Amino acid sequence: MEAMLNTAGRVITCKAAVAWEAGKPLVIENVEVAPPQAMEVRIKIMFTSLCHTDVYFWEAKGQAPLFPRIFGHEASGIVESVGEGVNDLQAGDHVLPVFTGECKECAHCKSEESNMCDLLRINTDRGVMLSDGKTRFSKNGAPIYHFLGTSTFSEYTVLHVGCLAKINKSAPLDKICILSCGISTGLGATLNVAKPKKGSTVAVFGLGAVGLAAAEGARISGASRVIGIDLNPNRFEEAKKFGVTDFINPMDHKKPVQEVIVEMTNGGADRSIECTGNINAMISAFECVHDGWGVAVLVGVPNKDAMFTTKPINFLNERTLKGTFFGNYKPRTDLPKVVDMYMKKELEVEKFITHKVSFSEINKAFDYMLRGEGLRCIISLE
Amino acid sequence: MEAMLNTAGRVITCKAAVAWEAGKPLVIENVEVAPPQAMEVRIKIMFTSLCHTDVYFWEAKGQAPLFPRIFGHEASGIVESVGEGVNDLQAGDHVLPVFTGECKECAHCKSEESNMCDLLRINTDRGVMLSDGKTRFSKNGAPIYHFLGTSTFSEYTVLHVGCLAKINKSAPLDKICILSCGISTGLGATLNVAKPKKGSTVAVFGLGAVGLAAAEGARISGASRVIGIDLNPNRFEEAKKFGVTDFINPMDHKKPVQEVIVEMTNGGADRSIECTGNINAMISAFECVHDGWGVAVLVGVPNKDAMFTTKPINFLNERTLKGTFFGNYKPRTDLPKVVDMYMKKELEVEKFITHKVSFSEINKAFDYMLRGEGLRCIISLE
Repeated sequence: MEAMLNTAGRVITCKAAVAWEAGKPLVIENVEVAPPQAMEVRIKIMFTSLCHTDVYFWEAKGQAPLFPRIFGHEASGIVESVGEGVNDLQAGDHVLPVFTGECKECAHCKSEESNMCDLLRINTDRGVMLSDGKTRFSKNGAPIYHFLGTSTFSEYTVLHVGCLAKINKSAPLDKICILSCGISTGLGATLNVAKPKKGSTVAVFGLGAVGLAAAEGARISGASRVIGIDLNPNRFEEAKKFGVTDFINPMDHKKPVQEVIVEMTNGGADRSIECTGNINAMISAFECVHDGWGVAVLVGVPNKDAMFTTKPINFLNERTLKGTFFGNYKPRTDLPKVVDMYMKKELEVEKFITHKVSFSEINKAFDYMLRGEGLRCIISLE
Repeated sequence: MEAMLNTAGRVITCKAAVAWEAGKPLVIENVEVAPPQAMEVRIKIMFTSLCHTDVYFWEAKGQAPLFPRIFGHEASGIVESVGEGVNDLQAGDHVLPVFTGECKECAHCKSEESNMCDLLRINTDRGVMLSDGKTRFSKNGAPIYHFLGTSTFSEYTVLHVGCLAKINKSAPLDKICILSCGISTGLGATLNVAKPKKGSTVAVFGLGAVGLAAAEGARISGASRVIGIDLNPNRFEEAKKFGVTDFINPMDHKKPVQEVIVEMTNGGADRSIECTGNINAMISAFECVHDGWGVAVLVGVPNKDAMFTTKPINFLNERTLKGTFFGNYKPRTDLPKVVDMYMKKELEVEKFITHKVSFSEINKAFDYMLRGEGLRCIISLE
């Protein structure tokens, strides 16, 4: 840690994968990373992985582009130095950076039920730090924008202290880095929101990493039947490792998939979790749950113009529909416990990791995701 | 009880208010009431009240008419005799007849979460008994149809044992008769489903008897603010007795009422309960709750063709939408406890009773309801 301590208070020059233009391969550059300001923390990224949200904003097809930018938000790291007023983290602490935060002071943070911090809630448009509206990244004096307040595709990055979860130092950073976004999102949707009882039937829409993490949550909950729904039949073999027992490809059926599920479950699934963001899947996920006690949980983020539509009687027959954000986990309070679940071998993380590349090969991770290959690709910055 | 005991096993001739035609005043007739068959119970009705559902099916504007019929489902009574296989009720027991039942054997009855019994769930079309498809009422040998399995507008009526809640004998039957439908529906929507915490803000859509019972639930829960929404400004004075602190008439505002509520509550109500059945009120009730923790509960039954529509982001921002049926109370298991809440003075019932008439004046109760006058009219059959 000696090298780290020497850098405190100074600008660090290090390697970062910079996105100069929408959709163009990232370029490894030497960039300057300014020291953390008040309530900020500079961390050394050890491992990062790629999540669909990075790719979505890198492609910049649906939103105002902001470039040059350093993407990345699913990662693990070690604190290098802390800014003024940061008392609960110090150099050497192991942390997970998170795309949403927990200020611990707003109404949401004080509520037991919410994790949607007023101050640090996800903001995909902002490319600067909250405190002074400036970037901490630059090259030759020109700013490089942040992404989600995390920008983990860099050897060093600066975050608001509220976006860092301090974790068990014995946890392997090359594994638990994927708990900082997608896996926790799916897992928490099941464990914290759907809350299936032992022996339940759980339907999971979308068998990507988030959906399989939802299935992993069902396995941990003791669900006896997990029905996976996906348009890609190749995903079923892999899904079996995550406890998925039945597979439905909606294209194989003439009737709506919710009707197929109601028939095969004698009235409906006990719980469902929607991880695609497709509006029709959302409606199916709601309408496939059992009357009297069924709970459907929405995770996937839809198109802005999509409208959710159903007959009110589907609610009146005692079905519940809930949405969740980051699996209802409060980043600082709850993520350390998710890491502990892995350390206690309750949660299996390795099976989500299908690829590993070095930092210089980061564009390969984009290729895997664009081809729909595998689940998570770990990018090593060691 | 001597007279009662002598009638067991025999046909009883008694007075009933018969609806011979849709929308025409009921006629007090002498009718024959057959003895209870297996798993049935014959009870003497002591008090009954009128609920909108009676009026809706009596008007028969939207559904296949079934006449002659004996309406009525909100009532209190005393067991006269029991059929074969009935072990948990006996002559002299005080009971509340309920329009939905609890067989205690189906998946719903065995689930802690549901009260939608497969066998005895509300059925508005059926006018006969389950066991033999026949009526127990007749006049001059011609059948008179049942309504909701209760038909409480009769001195004697026959029900399935699963539709009777055995209650504390010391409870005043002229008061607690209204707990057998509307009041429990609204009360349970708040206490069992919305579950507001102490100090919460609760919005109630519709200030009829069900909505005011939902407000009563909010009062009992310790809500600090109860916002009543109704198109009729005359209801506010009365609503104050039920703990309603703020009143909104949507006609007074140009913007949608959900926006008015979000502004006046700094982000939204903690809980809302929709008791009108109007589809726009349903949407407003959902969209008016706070992100992060808001829960909206649907009680009112809409038009069959109505569609619930909202943007999915309203769910994803951690709002919950649930429907309830009969306030999620299991009739036999839970109604005795609601009666006990009244006996312990936790629940105030008297304020719902605005009129009283004798059985011969039953058509007056219809007039009050059609004019929107008062909340509940008790019809005495003593």
